[in-house]
Amino acid sequence: MGREMDVELTNMCMVCDGTRVLVQNRRKPGWPGVTFPGGHIEPGESITASVIREVKEETGLTIEHPRLCGIKTWGEADRMAEIAFLYKAEVFSGELQSSEEGEVFWAERDSLPSMRLASGMEETFRVFFEDTLSELYYSRKDRDTPAGEWCYEDWEYTLQ
Amino acid sequence: MGREMDVELTNMCMVCDGTRVLVQNRRKPGWPGVTFPGGHIEPGESITASVIREVKEETGLTIEHPRLCGIKTWGEADRMAEIAFLYKAEVFSGELQSSEEGEVFWAERDSLPSMRLASGMEETFRVFFEDTLSELYYSRKDRDTPAGEWCYEDWEYTLQ
Repeated sequence: MGREMDVELTNMCMVCDGTRVLVQNRRKPGWPGVTFPGGHIEPGESITASVIREVKEETGLTIEHPRLCGIKTWGEADRMAEIAFLYKAEVFSGELQSSEEGEVFWAERDSLPSMRLASGMEETFRVFFEDTLSELYYSRKDRDTPAGEWCYEDWEYTLQ
Repeated sequence: MGREMDVELTNMCMVCDGTRVLVQNRRKPGWPGVTFPGGHIEPGESITASVIREVKEETGLTIEHPRLCGIKTWGEADRMAEIAFLYKAEVFSGELQSSEEGEVFWAERDSLPSMRLASGMEETFRVFFEDTLSELYYSRKDRDTPAGEWCYEDWEYTLQ
């Protein structure tokens, strides 16, 4: 091996129940609004295991057989800064319970666009919903300016 | 952001033409045998762009609309050491041309098991071929022994 990059690894999962999806209204000050549950991959766990753990922690539900449906990536000039692994799950058990991260509730998929979405979720939904898309890639608009306070407006995206 | 890990990022692509797939007989001394084309993600490029570039470099073909079909991951106790992004492509143009990495040629998908495969390819094929699988996760058998010469036999895998 060799040629490592410093990368932040996260996951996000769309839990589906027919036409409804499980959303989370995040309280996080830096990134508030409606999103899907998810979080960081911990050292020593597989990506799949991290998705199952995060959904359990944030929704109370135990999902089975989550499937990778795409990635959301943040490319700096010299490295891939973050990779979010996007999963879908249709099999689950347990009782819905919100965490301190934010309230979770079922919503009709068609109602998502009218909600107060977290930044970037509108384009993220497209990777979840459109089979022909695999990656939402963000690159910094001005690559010469050193990164300051992290802000969505400093990035532009392409869907691939 | 925060909580970065030192990760090696690679890709691998199964180019399909009906029942045939494009394979590469790798010359690489440390990992010889039949595999699919692929390589490293370069700083500043999306994962999708890296797949298109590597297939072009190693096969002469220009693929369009590659789709993510899974990941192959290597978890150490304290970090994710490598992530390989596995793609499928069914649209391509150009003329087949091998590179110094190894000879590329079309093979019937059913004939793959009888080939001299590179280590780990048998289980990697399952993620490419089985829709219910998203991740091939390798973890080190003995987590207390410091990593020496890299060797497949030091790892065990689960398919998820």
